[in-house]
Amino acid sequence: MQNHAYVVNGFLHGTVSPLDRGLAYGDGVFRTIKVVDGMPECWSLHYQKLESDCSAIGIVCPSADLLMSDMQQLIQTGEDSVAKIIITRGDGERGYTLPAVSMPSRIVIKSAMPQYPEAYASLGVRLSICDTRLPWQPKLAGIKHLNRLENVLARMEWHDPEIFDGILLDNECHVIECTSANIFARHANVLITPMLDNCGVAGVTRQRIIDSVHSLGLQAKVDVITIEQLLKADEIIICNSIHGALSVRQIQENVIPTTQLANVIRRTLVE
Amino acid sequence: MQNHAYVVNGFLHGTVSPLDRGLAYGDGVFRTIKVVDGMPECWSLHYQKLESDCSAIGIVCPSADLLMSDMQQLIQTGEDSVAKIIITRGDGERGYTLPAVSMPSRIVIKSAMPQYPEAYASLGVRLSICDTRLPWQPKLAGIKHLNRLENVLARMEWHDPEIFDGILLDNECHVIECTSANIFARHANVLITPMLDNCGVAGVTRQRIIDSVHSLGLQAKVDVITIEQLLKADEIIICNSIHGALSVRQIQENVIPTTQLANVIRRTLVE
Repeated sequence: MQNHAYVVNGFLHGTVSPLDRGLAYGDGVFRTIKVVDGMPECWSLHYQKLESDCSAIGIVCPSADLLMSDMQQLIQTGEDSVAKIIITRGDGERGYTLPAVSMPSRIVIKSAMPQYPEAYASLGVRLSICDTRLPWQPKLAGIKHLNRLENVLARMEWHDPEIFDGILLDNECHVIECTSANIFARHANVLITPMLDNCGVAGVTRQRIIDSVHSLGLQAKVDVITIEQLLKADEIIICNSIHGALSVRQIQENVIPTTQLANVIRRTLVE
Repeated sequence: MQNHAYVVNGFLHGTVSPLDRGLAYGDGVFRTIKVVDGMPECWSLHYQKLESDCSAIGIVCPSADLLMSDMQQLIQTGEDSVAKIIITRGDGERGYTLPAVSMPSRIVIKSAMPQYPEAYASLGVRLSICDTRLPWQPKLAGIKHLNRLENVLARMEWHDPEIFDGILLDNECHVIECTSANIFARHANVLITPMLDNCGVAGVTRQRIIDSVHSLGLQAKVDVITIEQLLKADEIIICNSIHGALSVRQIQENVIPTTQLANVIRRTLVE
């Protein structure tokens, strides 16, 4: 793994304690942030979400200054890359009982910015529908926590490199998200994204799109969407912090209409 | 954390890579094993379960010899302690896609044997009923994987040191297990333990009890149990590899009858 550099609890090339509860139980949260021209994009929104996700599972989030200084150890002036921040509850004794005093761990990993084929932006991407279902767990819904075995199992379902991502449904066959992206379905001038009260990850880019599409004459709506409703959409868009908004041109064998909307949204997100 | 010693990928005092998928996604499994007189108890059963859990999520389990040699670096002749073995999928690139070649990590941690008050064995223990529910995920049911945030949240629910463990229910109010133990309910001469096809961890000690209670004139049964049925049991027993079998004398405000059965089973397990 030569393509990565990392800082652990402030130490460049640091390593993780075998007693870290992030490893033992997935007891922590994370963020994936696009770094453009040496600057983490939307840092204040990402930090806000990190803090709120930490708080949801009772972890005191390290300060934004501390995390920014960790990132600055890794990011060169002017470079484009991806920064991943993991916050865990830190070391623990054996067993689930919380440590009397928690010292959260912070792990910041820099990776190369992925290079996507130009056709993903110009023509859109293909998705599959995963068999792995997301069960309802309202206490963890929306949180980008470290318990991601379902995403791993879902990603193991396809090997076709033409498939960009897979759609995750809950046990009611409601659309929730993709393994690494949120999803929007446009019906006329309403842009609907799944409600994530029971499962799924509520991403920062999803929220930015919800907050901004009125400027494009669209109405954003958070609602339950069945897979049948999704496949009848006038247009489908997926988004995350790295690739921004992308059109979906095909889901399994279903061809999905595309317009320039994803490109317009993607450009809006950069501004 | 002075009470632990560990071996990571064969190295004493080794540390974990920040790129390990066990940390990133909880992409791995674990075992907790009682070490008595310098020997891991029921090692072949534990290894069999480790291998089967690894296989269920597509990890090639390191050999029993390798893991035994890791443990031997830690365990002194004649000592009593607890060995925890974590197997992860090893380092990964960014994203859920499996590495082209996985190099599973093995982390072995030795802890002191916990000292339980004598009254736990002589009088039984008290349990609470947790609010945190275990959702159904048949693809991960039974596996002792590293996605254990639900156990962490459940353990955060009580602070009373008199409560030994908490009962976890699924969304249908079926009893599944405790946060750190499996559970049995005796009705007349039938010893019932919850079916774990949809969630929960199928422990080695649970299986040993299922396989052996006929010698005590009892019939073992794996079935759905509601919390109401549990509370009407003639007797309730919890078990894990560390404390063996213990009687439950109280669940919330409900006093539960106890006999010597847990003690008899506990002694049987040691043989």
